[in-house]
Amino acid sequence: MPAISRKGQQLPASPIRKLVPLAEEARRRGLKVYHLNIGQPDISSPPEAFRPLKEFSQSFVDYSHSAGNMSYRQRLAEYYQSLGLPVEAHDILVTTGGSEALMFTIMSCLDEGDEIIIPEPFYANYNSFSVASGCKVVPVNSRIEEGFALPPLSEFERLITPRTKAILICNPSNPTGYLYSLEELATLASIVEKHNLWLIADEVYRDFVYDGHKHHSILEFESIAEQAVVVDSVSKRFNLCGVRVGCLITRNKDLQATVLRFLQARLSPPSLGQLVAQAALDTPPTYFEDIRREYEQRRNFIVERLNTIPGVVCPKPGGAFYCMVRLPVANAEDFCKFLLQDFSYHGCTVMLAPAAGFYATPQKGLDQVRLAYVLKKEDLAVAADCLEEALKVYPTHGFHSPGD
Amino acid sequence: MPAISRKGQQLPASPIRKLVPLAEEARRRGLKVYHLNIGQPDISSPPEAFRPLKEFSQSFVDYSHSAGNMSYRQRLAEYYQSLGLPVEAHDILVTTGGSEALMFTIMSCLDEGDEIIIPEPFYANYNSFSVASGCKVVPVNSRIEEGFALPPLSEFERLITPRTKAILICNPSNPTGYLYSLEELATLASIVEKHNLWLIADEVYRDFVYDGHKHHSILEFESIAEQAVVVDSVSKRFNLCGVRVGCLITRNKDLQATVLRFLQARLSPPSLGQLVAQAALDTPPTYFEDIRREYEQRRNFIVERLNTIPGVVCPKPGGAFYCMVRLPVANAEDFCKFLLQDFSYHGCTVMLAPAAGFYATPQKGLDQVRLAYVLKKEDLAVAADCLEEALKVYPTHGFHSPGD
Repeated sequence: MPAISRKGQQLPASPIRKLVPLAEEARRRGLKVYHLNIGQPDISSPPEAFRPLKEFSQSFVDYSHSAGNMSYRQRLAEYYQSLGLPVEAHDILVTTGGSEALMFTIMSCLDEGDEIIIPEPFYANYNSFSVASGCKVVPVNSRIEEGFALPPLSEFERLITPRTKAILICNPSNPTGYLYSLEELATLASIVEKHNLWLIADEVYRDFVYDGHKHHSILEFESIAEQAVVVDSVSKRFNLCGVRVGCLITRNKDLQATVLRFLQARLSPPSLGQLVAQAALDTPPTYFEDIRREYEQRRNFIVERLNTIPGVVCPKPGGAFYCMVRLPVANAEDFCKFLLQDFSYHGCTVMLAPAAGFYATPQKGLDQVRLAYVLKKEDLAVAADCLEEALKVYPTHGFHSPGD
Repeated sequence: MPAISRKGQQLPASPIRKLVPLAEEARRRGLKVYHLNIGQPDISSPPEAFRPLKEFSQSFVDYSHSAGNMSYRQRLAEYYQSLGLPVEAHDILVTTGGSEALMFTIMSCLDEGDEIIIPEPFYANYNSFSVASGCKVVPVNSRIEEGFALPPLSEFERLITPRTKAILICNPSNPTGYLYSLEELATLASIVEKHNLWLIADEVYRDFVYDGHKHHSILEFESIAEQAVVVDSVSKRFNLCGVRVGCLITRNKDLQATVLRFLQARLSPPSLGQLVAQAALDTPPTYFEDIRREYEQRRNFIVERLNTIPGVVCPKPGGAFYCMVRLPVANAEDFCKFLLQDFSYHGCTVMLAPAAGFYATPQKGLDQVRLAYVLKKEDLAVAADCLEEALKVYPTHGFHSPGD
């Protein structure tokens, strides 16, 4: 049998999805599984989004421009301009979800052996995209005990080598919910300017910012206009995860031209998704205000509830809809498997994402899980009850030495 | 300004799409442009496909399983079984178009510096996917003078080195229309078996086979069940290019597991596209019979017509809906630009794909174009008139020495 490629062998399984077969099996056994493993909310999309499906009258579905429909790019540019960001339609390349935007950004900016600095813990698939393109993730650590506040930004500078090509942040952060301040972004901008690096910001959770805070984009910094790349998506904003429409924004013409060649190779982003995504731009502001209020309530509820469980630590996130949770177990992945395989409480169980996959440093985050508070409060309450009960009955409950 | 990656710089622009800005400019000048550059047919999709859009009643669009909806994979398996192919639902991984299936197959099977043997000329994006994953295309040449018949298959064997990991074919071929015989496929199977290589077959044009011939799949060869990978797509079969739904079929469990990890990193294939693609499987056989007849007529017309133009050579393809055409010009790309920039005939012009990008060997195919006979006969007739007239008035008409 021919060999699998080394990069294929090294590619990690998604910590968010690798336990899916166990969840399927649990459902087959008749259990109700609360999915807090994945950022798949239960919130309705704006009804405006689906008008093009009802009105669909094309006789076939043709390719779009590789960079997306110009009508959509123009409407998107107006949206970014309404946020005060200097973005024109030609600065926007429409991608198949934010995932593709990230993958092609990394491939366009980094070669095999190049280094990318990322605050840790980070969205697990950053590891996958880095392995796929052969580059090396260099983590900057943040700690659950400090609410995942960033270390002094000089820590970033200490890690820069001749192979460093980029810094990648997620703001607000998946998985920690950390929201970057304008001052932190300004410091990052000055570092990439000084060291001539790319600054890539995944801003797909821009709309999910709580406690009256304001989101700032790296596109606000004119001094790094040629170095900034923003990854965005309609997945979370409109709960249209499955339409697979995202985009990449950069004012660097060379990068635009390079990414466009990757986009040409895969032909075009989804045409139906683009119709829906464009229509979604007609959504009134009240939609987002309601959703922000809803998530703020969910966050307040789940964080407070989790911290009442003995041994559980959960810092309060400032944005996005995830929290990182430290559990009183030696190995959170084993515990997540236990939840799906050997546990139920009133016919229910809960699926969580083991957090080790959100770290690049080996052995970090072994006792943590990422939890997505994407279900309504009643469901979160039942899920928290399950979690509390499971921790009580988990056979290897308590901390273990590595030799156990 | 930070540097673009080497692979980003090396990535070729798509010969099918790189002249799009010139075509847009021509349209702005009021010209009617006949698009024979791209396999985007004018044929209606089966109406069955659009039923799920009319009936769409979800309140949001969620991610699907990373490998695609199981209901779709099961229906797809039945389709392949109806062709006599030994395919089960779990052997099928649903991808974002055939493009993604190819990209992840190459990334899963080949590392940087590994070699992939491909009969030349070949679908231009095979070059792009190879550059993106750092592997090297080793072409086996076929010649327009011989109707692109494959060279003796011993030619493949002569090119095998210790770095060779795979042979990739497109059957029937885009861009040549070449249809592989069962004997040729058997020989290829024996070669990959002997040398322990992957055999990857792009079979997206399976339904477009003319003159009463039958298409054979590499999945028919039980001896290479662990080595065969088929790439497929709904783009051409149902003229649903824009829904971006394809698949990868392999019975190799290790490869399935590896590709699944790439698929998890990009989350899921388009959900709306999957609904449409699944509904399209209800299409009655008469749809395909009608389309085959239509394309056969278009092929007969355009090939005959082109060969009446002085200096033009166009072999008759056996499948797909492309033909390779040799023109009496030194540089077909310059001529394609001339068609869009400096020429019109009764308010019309034609867009073609310069063929050099379909070769890996430098300087090959410089006087050739790929033409997609995807428009109705009346449109093809006008396009051919344009082409004939353009060749008459093309200022640098005739052959030039490379020093010109």
